[in-house]
Amino acid sequence: MGAALPLLSVVLVRTRNPLNIGAAARAMQNFGASDLRVVAPYEASFREARSAVGAGAVLEAAREFANVAEAVADCRLVVGTTAARRRELHQPVIELQHAGERMRGALAEGRVALLFGSEKHGLTREDLDRCHWLLHVPAEPEQPSLNLGQAVAVCLWELARDAAAEPPPPPPEPGAPVGELERLGGLLMEVLQAGGYLHSGNEAGTRSEVRRLLLRYSVTEADTYLLMGMARRVLWKLRGSLR
Amino acid sequence: MGAALPLLSVVLVRTRNPLNIGAAARAMQNFGASDLRVVAPYEASFREARSAVGAGAVLEAAREFANVAEAVADCRLVVGTTAARRRELHQPVIELQHAGERMRGALAEGRVALLFGSEKHGLTREDLDRCHWLLHVPAEPEQPSLNLGQAVAVCLWELARDAAAEPPPPPPEPGAPVGELERLGGLLMEVLQAGGYLHSGNEAGTRSEVRRLLLRYSVTEADTYLLMGMARRVLWKLRGSLR
Repeated sequence: MGAALPLLSVVLVRTRNPLNIGAAARAMQNFGASDLRVVAPYEASFREARSAVGAGAVLEAAREFANVAEAVADCRLVVGTTAARRRELHQPVIELQHAGERMRGALAEGRVALLFGSEKHGLTREDLDRCHWLLHVPAEPEQPSLNLGQAVAVCLWELARDAAAEPPPPPPEPGAPVGELERLGGLLMEVLQAGGYLHSGNEAGTRSEVRRLLLRYSVTEADTYLLMGMARRVLWKLRGSLR
Repeated sequence: MGAALPLLSVVLVRTRNPLNIGAAARAMQNFGASDLRVVAPYEASFREARSAVGAGAVLEAAREFANVAEAVADCRLVVGTTAARRRELHQPVIELQHAGERMRGALAEGRVALLFGSEKHGLTREDLDRCHWLLHVPAEPEQPSLNLGQAVAVCLWELARDAAAEPPPPPPEPGAPVGELERLGGLLMEVLQAGGYLHSGNEAGTRSEVRRLLLRYSVTEADTYLLMGMARRVLWKLRGSLR
């Protein structure tokens, strides 16, 4: 990872449930954001969230503001989240999968606020008016509204996901040299021979089947040792039985 | 949106907190997944989660299983989540930003299980042995472990976010249902037993080795018929030799 979001401020507006404040703080710690701001929270919620066991550094450092205007005063970009694809919204609505790039650009420049409204009513029209643009998490029409803690997690993941941008991992292990696969295949054929599976009608077909499987399975060198060990043991037993 | 995940099964293993079961179900409804399976949950948790107000259709239809093997028996791909970047893990670990594409390819083919372990201990080694590969959500080293409900939301969002985009072309042949691989693995173990390969010191290790290989090789349904036919013949001969 190593891709923190030091200039992101998560702003929770009128949050009611202390568990949601805690969940937001947890997600921030997961994805490297540290500046949590709460606006007019239900008094008890904020107190309870802060005093929860293992509340962590983000909650301890969280700051309380009386209104959104004060909470975002030092930010260069203010983005509000909305479950509505559009109401009579004046601001542009960007879907989450396109929002990351825009926000990352701004985060390279200065502080960015990401606002989440109350569990029940979201952000008010007045809150929204303070936003440069709005972020919408696309979801199923039957259940378009995300739980607050999950919404924070999903948005922060989207911001963090490409920051690392490591190249995709290489395939786990290279296949064994083909010569070794041939030896393994030969041994398996001996097992099938001794086991009575082979007869004149299926021998050639089985041989090419076995070869094909071993190639397709990308059997590794370590696998060949393991499998040859097994096959040899079984073969020894089978041949013993024929004496 | 309109991009549901009808063939995804979310499997919660030994979940303790009913709120987390509810949160997982909520995220599934947000992102269009409907098949929730719980394995050996704390009794009270599952009952409480189900009876919560507004539990919703996903929780009502959730099914309970005694163990992971039964829960994933009909799945073609089994993916486990892990907070560890790597322990002594045998399976490939794919970071979430690369996992979506792989899983979407498999979802175009058949049922895919995504496993989440208990809040405290995650998935056990034995659970992990049943997975084709593991998914890791990259997070800050100071707080690498996500809350369960948030982890589900983040993973489902990653699957849903590009779903509108064309799915990648499917691999030539899909893997066999995991239940069938188990049967094949069991038969191979019988061959190794009758062949004298197994002893008390290597039996457990060999069992997980065999299971792991069969998953990694993406053995097809046609392959399982072929291989079971071979194994049965050899087994018959071996057993004949013991009489």
